Amino acid sequence: MSADTSSLTLNRLSVYLRCLEHLEHEGVEQISSAALAERFDLSASQIRKDLAQFGDFGIRGVGYDVSLLRRRLVDLFSLDEENPLLILGIGNLGTALARFPGFHRNGFRLVGLFDSDPEKVGRRVAGLEIRPPEEIAPTVSRTDVRLGILAVPAEAAQESYAELVAAGIEAVLNFAPVRLREDPAVPVKNVDLRIHLEELVFRLANGV
Amino acid sequence: MSADTSSLTLNRLSVYLRCLEHLEHEGVEQISSAALAERFDLSASQIRKDLAQFGDFGIRGVGYDVSLLRRRLVDLFSLDEENPLLILGIGNLGTALARFPGFHRNGFRLVGLFDSDPEKVGRRVAGLEIRPPEEIAPTVSRTDVRLGILAVPAEAAQESYAELVAAGIEAVLNFAPVRLREDPAVPVKNVDLRIHLEELVFRLANGV
Repeated sequence: MSADTSSLTLNRLSVYLRCLEHLEHEGVEQISSAALAERFDLSASQIRKDLAQFGDFGIRGVGYDVSLLRRRLVDLFSLDEENPLLILGIGNLGTALARFPGFHRNGFRLVGLFDSDPEKVGRRVAGLEIRPPEEIAPTVSRTDVRLGILAVPAEAAQESYAELVAAGIEAVLNFAPVRLREDPAVPVKNVDLRIHLEELVFRLANGV
Repeated sequence: MSADTSSLTLNRLSVYLRCLEHLEHEGVEQISSAALAERFDLSASQIRKDLAQFGDFGIRGVGYDVSLLRRRLVDLFSLDEENPLLILGIGNLGTALARFPGFHRNGFRLVGLFDSDPEKVGRRVAGLEIRPPEEIAPTVSRTDVRLGILAVPAEAAQESYAELVAAGIEAVLNFAPVRLREDPAVPVKNVDLRIHLEELVFRLANGV
């Protein structure tokens, strides 16, 4: 993969990985790009183009080896290791994310929950005790956590991002509905939930 | 736009809309595809291709008229109307979504919160009283709500989806981490939060 691999390409590879996990679970051993596209409502030519970028996994007339390709994608995303995560902001959203099963397995492990509200500090969520933001830096040292999830209110997001940066976090997934001024060394990925609503509204309005 | 407009294209158009709102707010009147791409880390050729699908908004040597293009995208997504929404499942995630400012303005309006837990029924969140699922159908009749957000636990998701379908909901945004068996008449858009984490892990591992 080249250094300028776009978010869109990476997100498609994640979708393929999810489909392959599903197929492997069902016992499917091989699948063509056409069948993969049909089954999961994707584009066959896009699948071939995306996957060709990192090796020749297709077998002419047979298709892809499901397990092999899944393992290759797991490697690509470094999901064969356990990637530690922490969450700053344990309100309703932070609590929901902490309990989300996808953040505890398949390559991810939650190692810390932080909130600046003294009333929340000490409570337990998803098996972890909520700690104050001052303890983020020691947690980074102790666990090598590089990924931080920001689930604070919009008005606290910039300051909270700065706390994550100062504590040594290297990349941030931002759920606060606000555009942050980014430190060039600590990229932010914004989760924009309205995108999905807009897609559904378009499909309803256009009957597609 | 053709009937087979893909999710990826629609999602890019949502991103452009967000950028244009931002630029209009800043007082920018015109922008070239190159400047738009540079400013928001997008692809200029992709922007031109996506926007060319629905009219000629570019002015040679000047670029796009920011307000005009924003209004055209708002029309395209039917965001000039108020699209009513309801949420089924008012746990931590449902509560966070109900309070999310993006679900109350710019084309969306929350008209109902539903939960099967009798202890939650009657409580107020974001100015609305939580009601039992039996009241979804009357709410659909009364408000013409077509979009439902599913924020129940994974094990309740299939049954809850069926309740939305039976009540007359026409499209569903699913936050439960499970793949639903879909009714062909009621499309489901799954929100996969792991995709964003996987992208960040890839970027950290590859230093891009």
